Amino acid sequence: MRTFRLVIACPDRVGIVAKVSNFLATYNGWITEASHHSDTQSGWFFMRHEVRADSLPFDLEEFRHAFAPIAREFSMKWRVSDSSELKRVVLMASRESHCLADLLHRWHSGELPCEIPCVISNHDELRSMVEWHGIPYCHVPVDPQDKEPAFAEVSRLIREHAADTVVLARYMQILPPQLCQEFAMQVINIHHSFLPSFVGARPYHQASLRGVKLIGATCHYVTEELDAGPIIEQDVVRISHRDSVEDMVRLGKDVEKMVLSRGLRHHLEDRVMVHDNRTVVFA
Amino acid sequence: MRTFRLVIACPDRVGIVAKVSNFLATYNGWITEASHHSDTQSGWFFMRHEVRADSLPFDLEEFRHAFAPIAREFSMKWRVSDSSELKRVVLMASRESHCLADLLHRWHSGELPCEIPCVISNHDELRSMVEWHGIPYCHVPVDPQDKEPAFAEVSRLIREHAADTVVLARYMQILPPQLCQEFAMQVINIHHSFLPSFVGARPYHQASLRGVKLIGATCHYVTEELDAGPIIEQDVVRISHRDSVEDMVRLGKDVEKMVLSRGLRHHLEDRVMVHDNRTVVFA
Amino acid sequence: MRTFRLVIACPDRVGIVAKVSNFLATYNGWITEASHHSDTQSGWFFMRHEVRADSLPFDLEEFRHAFAPIAREFSMKWRVSDSSELKRVVLMASRESHCLADLLHRWHSGELPCEIPCVISNHDELRSMVEWHGIPYCHVPVDPQDKEPAFAEVSRLIREHAADTVVLARYMQILPPQLCQEFAMQVINIHHSFLPSFVGARPYHQASLRGVKLIGATCHYVTEELDAGPIIEQDVVRISHRDSVEDMVRLGKDVEKMVLSRGLRHHLEDRVMVHDNRTVVFA
Amino acid sequence: MRTFRLVIACPDRVGIVAKVSNFLATYNGWITEASHHSDTQSGWFFMRHEVRADSLPFDLEEFRHAFAPIAREFSMKWRVSDSSELKRVVLMASRESHCLADLLHRWHSGELPCEIPCVISNHDELRSMVEWHGIPYCHVPVDPQDKEPAFAEVSRLIREHAADTVVLARYMQILPPQLCQEFAMQVINIHHSFLPSFVGARPYHQASLRGVKLIGATCHYVTEELDAGPIIEQDVVRISHRDSVEDMVRLGKDVEKMVLSRGLRHHLEDRVMVHDNRTVVFA
Repeated sequence: MRTFRLVIACPDRVGIVAKVSNFLATYNGWITEASHHSDTQSGWFFMRHEVRADSLPFDLEEFRHAFAPIAREFSMKWRVSDSSELKRVVLMASRESHCLADLLHRWHSGELPCEIPCVISNHDELRSMVEWHGIPYCHVPVDPQDKEPAFAEVSRLIREHAADTVVLARYMQILPPQLCQEFAMQVINIHHSFLPSFVGARPYHQASLRGVKLIGATCHYVTEELDAGPIIEQDVVRISHRDSVEDMVRLGKDVEKMVLSRGLRHHLEDRVMVHDNRTVVFA
Repeated sequence: MRTFRLVIACPDRVGIVAKVSNFLATYNGWITEASHHSDTQSGWFFMRHEVRADSLPFDLEEFRHAFAPIAREFSMKWRVSDSSELKRVVLMASRESHCLADLLHRWHSGELPCEIPCVISNHDELRSMVEWHGIPYCHVPVDPQDKEPAFAEVSRLIREHAADTVVLARYMQILPPQLCQEFAMQVINIHHSFLPSFVGARPYHQASLRGVKLIGATCHYVTEELDAGPIIEQDVVRISHRDSVEDMVRLGKDVEKMVLSRGLRHHLEDRVMVHDNRTVVFA
Repeated sequence: MRTFRLVIACPDRVGIVAKVSNFLATYNGWITEASHHSDTQSGWFFMRHEVRADSLPFDLEEFRHAFAPIAREFSMKWRVSDSSELKRVVLMASRESHCLADLLHRWHSGELPCEIPCVISNHDELRSMVEWHGIPYCHVPVDPQDKEPAFAEVSRLIREHAADTVVLARYMQILPPQLCQEFAMQVINIHHSFLPSFVGARPYHQASLRGVKLIGATCHYVTEELDAGPIIEQDVVRISHRDSVEDMVRLGKDVEKMVLSRGLRHHLEDRVMVHDNRTVVFA
Repeated sequence: MRTFRLVIACPDRVGIVAKVSNFLATYNGWITEASHHSDTQSGWFFMRHEVRADSLPFDLEEFRHAFAPIAREFSMKWRVSDSSELKRVVLMASRESHCLADLLHRWHSGELPCEIPCVISNHDELRSMVEWHGIPYCHVPVDPQDKEPAFAEVSRLIREHAADTVVLARYMQILPPQLCQEFAMQVINIHHSFLPSFVGARPYHQASLRGVKLIGATCHYVTEELDAGPIIEQDVVRISHRDSVEDMVRLGKDVEKMVLSRGLRHHLEDRVMVHDNRTVVFA
């Protein structure tokens, strides 16, 4: 069912819900899902409505036009999207295939509502797998001595493919600040630890040294500070003294791909809102 | 913070949210929490609002009066409650103390928003524990040959203490149909299995024989059909071949008390709505 | 590291562990993993040793010869296997791809220690995916009016490919009793419910009707009685009133493939022993 | 059933298992549980046997005498304990009752195999609850300006009550280094975060600021470095943007008490071995 998704954040005050639901009712909008959140710490209000598109008398453009006065009145940050206009997601990977294969299969079987215009990798190993899915594979090697040209090419490819979302599916390279800024809150990373524990490289080795009893994965938006962006989704799996670092890597893969696919799904369905480096996820 | 909780179920149609939020906005109601659910299978709509009591110009009685026309217009089943008017919960137990001790401690430490006018038990073992908490203990033995007098006394005690909720905290007796009807959707049971598996007696023995790898507990409203009432909450814990029935009993206790306290909390906060023998839980 | 896996079940009595570990120590066997279980209910003892192959002075044949007297003395059911001799696993699927794609990827990336001589399906949809992995695809349509010829062909293919394990990766057909007997404790199924709840067809519909708060999946050996064979692994995922049957199907897929791959892995590593329709899993 | 628990750690080499199981078999020892672990990183071997006491011809003293030569031969760190000689556990608490009440109830209902000679607290709030259980309550106020006298008294009380284990059940005071050394690997703490995230004070506030999607608790041995001792047990619970710090505190309580009771139980049953600031837990 085609829906419009109206996503709003604004300073909290009385009457927001009434105003918005009145607006929708005026046009006979059939609400299929509604979520609110009053954040008492920040004093902000967050709201998401999903409305059957065929119940409304206008298209997205007119919706925006009609809603603009309300948005102004309440100083809203807002967006409205059409579920039938799929987001364009560029996937980036390195040599590890588990996250990429998982996302490609979900997309291929119709479970992940997006388009994937291309996959970018700094290695060539995963080309055949990607191309079997009918998706172009862009091999952009990264010269450790001079990474700039590679990232310039990455930036160009993202823009060329009109992507609105970039997923680092175990890409294993740190994006330069400029890329982080250019695509703020559009780049999603999967980190293989339960952040904020074990930031940076080799988190499973860090976990093994510390002797933790659970290992985890964290899906978050990429910001300039490494592994410190707003967290979208996390999960853990139980380990024991019997699990070597290799076992952790294997067990961790399943958590990584589950957490990444869940986090990405929330993003694709416009369920994630960011405020003060934290997320509201209307799951 | 004192709130009014408005809980509504009605046949789904356009304009319900607008009507209700308009009503609240008209009186400057400050909504602290709002939840909606459109059940496409049954065509019913469910809604719960929590509104700051001090933001509204009237008390509960006037609220009911003012809202009644809207309720009629949309054929609503509805109720509004005051968070400061605590529900009165009669606890019933047998010999096992874990669920009862857990609920009493939560209540005693201020975590469980209710009053406990008395505890009823068919045995006398737990009297001292209950009385330490300052709660009257009613010992109502059940004669296996003639249970009727005992249940008549139970019914009398529930009414005498003006209870609106009864919790079977491992009471181990099957309530007669008449009691189930008299207090429909007011009696909460904890069953020590992941229902609908292992209905009836000795579920851990049944689980052991079947060789399951997880055991669970189910919190549900009591209906005339044994262990078949609407489910409020469930959870499981992992077991293995090493766990004997005794281990399951021990491990199960922790799940039972967690599931019961979570389910009861949802009920006390008016978060549970029943339709077609299933629950909507706005947790 | 190449290991021999010695797996033993026998009536419990004093001295079994000493006898077996003495045997291994006599030949300087380097034990890398050892697990025991005394089942007090049945009076049986279960044991599994993993021993570095290069620490022993003989091959599998001589191992069997040398150990046989001990096995006789203690009336053991036993087997010893070589980790470098991979099991041969025939996968069977229908139209749903999630379990098959997951297993193929794990195999392809070297995570699943087995050979996959062929995939058998009653439909032709998944041929291209399978063949991309370099695995033969056998399309064996099942005539609903006369299923016998199809299952005769399935049986022939399993034997032709010298498979020792068959995995029903959402095959959606009930195997005839003859096949169940012929390959007893060699056929692994994934059922999309937390057994014994919701045996048979459309378990997610059954779960939705019953209003459960968790849905699950069960990996088990196939026996003649439908969905009643020994359980190897189970897991669950939380759902709520908001999840339609379609949502359950989607959420369930992730549990199904995780549970199936974990259960299969245990089987491939000779960690599963069956006794009285229950499993001992030395995970 | 009364058992002897033989717990061993030593440099790994061939023949340890054979030697130990031979020793037990020689005396007709009936092994009810056996666990091994070869740590490839450190090259150490860990082993735990539980043996029916009535199957052995000697008491604990003679056991130690008979086993000593083997222990010397393999340079073992080892201990053997009698399940019927309960550990003596001093509980320490502050004002928060949830962990203390949970442990007391488990002890009172016979679930926790230990003796509790006294409870020490820096406040007087929990006296009545403790004394209802028939346990002496020692109020030892801590002067923030001069903590030494209080900790000297704590140390004296622990020794006076011949405790072999001390549990900080949300004691909220940092033990001085001297106490940590005096009772090394005997003091168990519950920290209300998933360590190593959020060391130190107010972990739920830290978690809220960071916007994590799971909060946790960690049960660990206390060492001189704050919240950095060997981890015995951990667990987490899911939270969302809707959960305030107060909600986290409430939800966290349940994880804290579960994790603490599980960790303590492992310790009481001699299932925990410490090596290189990490634990082997034969659960």
